[in-house]
Amino acid sequence: MIDDIWNCLRRVREAAPLVHNITNFVVMNNTANALLAAGASPVMAHAPEEVEDFVAISGALVVNIGTLSSDWIAAMRLAALKAGAAGKPWVLDPVGVGATAFRSATAAVLVEIGPTVVRGNASEILALADAATEATRGVDSTVSSDLSLEAARRIAAVTGGVVAVTGATDYVTDGRDVHALRNGDAMMGRVTGLGCSASALVGAFLAVEPDPLLATTAALAVFGVAGEIAAENAPGPGTLQLRLYDTLYALDRQALQSRLRLD
Amino acid sequence: MIDDIWNCLRRVREAAPLVHNITNFVVMNNTANALLAAGASPVMAHAPEEVEDFVAISGALVVNIGTLSSDWIAAMRLAALKAGAAGKPWVLDPVGVGATAFRSATAAVLVEIGPTVVRGNASEILALADAATEATRGVDSTVSSDLSLEAARRIAAVTGGVVAVTGATDYVTDGRDVHALRNGDAMMGRVTGLGCSASALVGAFLAVEPDPLLATTAALAVFGVAGEIAAENAPGPGTLQLRLYDTLYALDRQALQSRLRLD
Amino acid sequence: MIDDIWNCLRRVREAAPLVHNITNFVVMNNTANALLAAGASPVMAHAPEEVEDFVAISGALVVNIGTLSSDWIAAMRLAALKAGAAGKPWVLDPVGVGATAFRSATAAVLVEIGPTVVRGNASEILALADAATEATRGVDSTVSSDLSLEAARRIAAVTGGVVAVTGATDYVTDGRDVHALRNGDAMMGRVTGLGCSASALVGAFLAVEPDPLLATTAALAVFGVAGEIAAENAPGPGTLQLRLYDTLYALDRQALQSRLRLD
Repeated sequence: MIDDIWNCLRRVREAAPLVHNITNFVVMNNTANALLAAGASPVMAHAPEEVEDFVAISGALVVNIGTLSSDWIAAMRLAALKAGAAGKPWVLDPVGVGATAFRSATAAVLVEIGPTVVRGNASEILALADAATEATRGVDSTVSSDLSLEAARRIAAVTGGVVAVTGATDYVTDGRDVHALRNGDAMMGRVTGLGCSASALVGAFLAVEPDPLLATTAALAVFGVAGEIAAENAPGPGTLQLRLYDTLYALDRQALQSRLRLD
Repeated sequence: MIDDIWNCLRRVREAAPLVHNITNFVVMNNTANALLAAGASPVMAHAPEEVEDFVAISGALVVNIGTLSSDWIAAMRLAALKAGAAGKPWVLDPVGVGATAFRSATAAVLVEIGPTVVRGNASEILALADAATEATRGVDSTVSSDLSLEAARRIAAVTGGVVAVTGATDYVTDGRDVHALRNGDAMMGRVTGLGCSASALVGAFLAVEPDPLLATTAALAVFGVAGEIAAENAPGPGTLQLRLYDTLYALDRQALQSRLRLD
Repeated sequence: MIDDIWNCLRRVREAAPLVHNITNFVVMNNTANALLAAGASPVMAHAPEEVEDFVAISGALVVNIGTLSSDWIAAMRLAALKAGAAGKPWVLDPVGVGATAFRSATAAVLVEIGPTVVRGNASEILALADAATEATRGVDSTVSSDLSLEAARRIAAVTGGVVAVTGATDYVTDGRDVHALRNGDAMMGRVTGLGCSASALVGAFLAVEPDPLLATTAALAVFGVAGEIAAENAPGPGTLQLRLYDTLYALDRQALQSRLRLD
């Protein structure tokens, strides 16, 4: 599988796919930088007047509900519907779903449109599957990703797509097959928006690889390995974030292969 | 007092309090990273539909009027009123108050709700106290913090809370007692939004320490010492900002104690 | 000309001019940091209630349509008209013009107001001149800057101002004279928003230098040289961005002079 994963990254670097992001204010800059470092070409645009035009020229769409507001929901819906109609893959990152009724209602509306991939932490995936027994705690995860694998399968059954639960172990499932990734570093949780950047990278990989299970697994593998390298000997999260971009930019097959922990 | 200050930081790291920020677009990412590096758990959300829900599950609220617009003011008011009703501490950062009539009117409305802590630079505190003899110059301070201590006392008399004036010397007062902190570095003024990050850190400390004079002093002490360490031998503000997160993450009691300059 | 360029930077550092930015969410933080590192004083504000007040107290205005929405267009127009009426220089950065009809219509409206300087990449300048034979590809340039020099001249003929096309070679023209700059590094394209930061720096230089051809050339020269130094031996775009702020902060005349490639 290392060949498939590496080829995904290689194709992103060669094709520099346009990835249209409707994402939150907190992570826009970092998401764009992660995409650029990995070789993709980000566009951030949210006006209802133009989101369909951008979806039309993009290789993939990423919708992230982090700093949600009512006027953005209309744009998210328009863009997601356009992606569906145009056969473009799209990713939903349901940030903080379950924390408020507003978020849960919005996420439910978007899930119904049928995202190609949903990526969230364990609390979010549980909430999204309406299976949460605990309320989510802001945007941080309080439930282990293992417990939410069953919730991920249920979401996949509804969307017909892929669902990824990221945490100490990342699970990627299309409802039948499951890939488990054990890369990354705990310090990554001390940098804001790395989950959002991972979702954006999934978008970039979907733009070059038609199999969403492979594209998602490859994107999370590359991101986890890069994060792990970036965290090594880092005195803190500032250095980690800087090195993450450097590593995404320079990552070679050898480093990816030697570190990948995939079941 | 070093024991009290250190214990505040220790409790933030242990409790990882949720801090709800309604803040400006410029600093959202940095504020979130500063909170995460210090051990807190940030949430950024501004929709009127959900701000009260987030205040209800948060340990503190931070309201920052940096990139103000009319539709955000309603959310700020709702959140501040909810904080008051729920007995949650909240911080007001009146960015650029005095620079425009719009800002001054908004800040006045928010001050009336009674923030637990107000943090601003000298120009802002003077303007907020309606004692400014000079107009503020954008978001930068043109008045020394010393001159504004009297204005800070007057604001504290109105809110019944704590007011902090930050600058070369930081003053923290509840209207009677005054703490003066002389940490930090002039190069910090060459990184955008460090004042906003300091305000957010005050929110995190308020979430774990009920005495707002202590919580505010402790947060500004930790931030000033971390900034000072980050600035040492830094060739410029890029390096300073990176190291600030690393230092907030790794700061130990020994470094805090040996550098603290508190009267 | 090195004397003139150096003197522009020196005056920015001495005067710390207030530069009012109405810019996109992706780059607000970086733009502010680039301005601060270079010695200017940024303000970011977009509310129609106050943009005219900020223009009135600023040395220059920068309008950037990156993350455009209808409610921001009104503020951009108000601010640009106020700049014209008050005799303040202003910069238009038409991000992504040509990619969507919404962007092209907005850019056309703003160009009519007569920006002192327009800065864009080759695709944007071609689209803005209605001379594009290819659609722009998101916010990245797919046309060499050489091809767009003629388009730049045509825009300058309309606005009566200066137009800059940035790329491997930067061209700056007032419709007659042309300056060509060959500084910078290809890796700069892997950091989001450096073009936006260059536009903001043009604003800072316009605030201290009345000749827009000189101010624009000087700002792009300083930015290109700083980027080039920052890219040297950088393992990736994370390090480049960090060093860019450090270099803008510390750049001396000797480094500027020895590296400047200006025709």
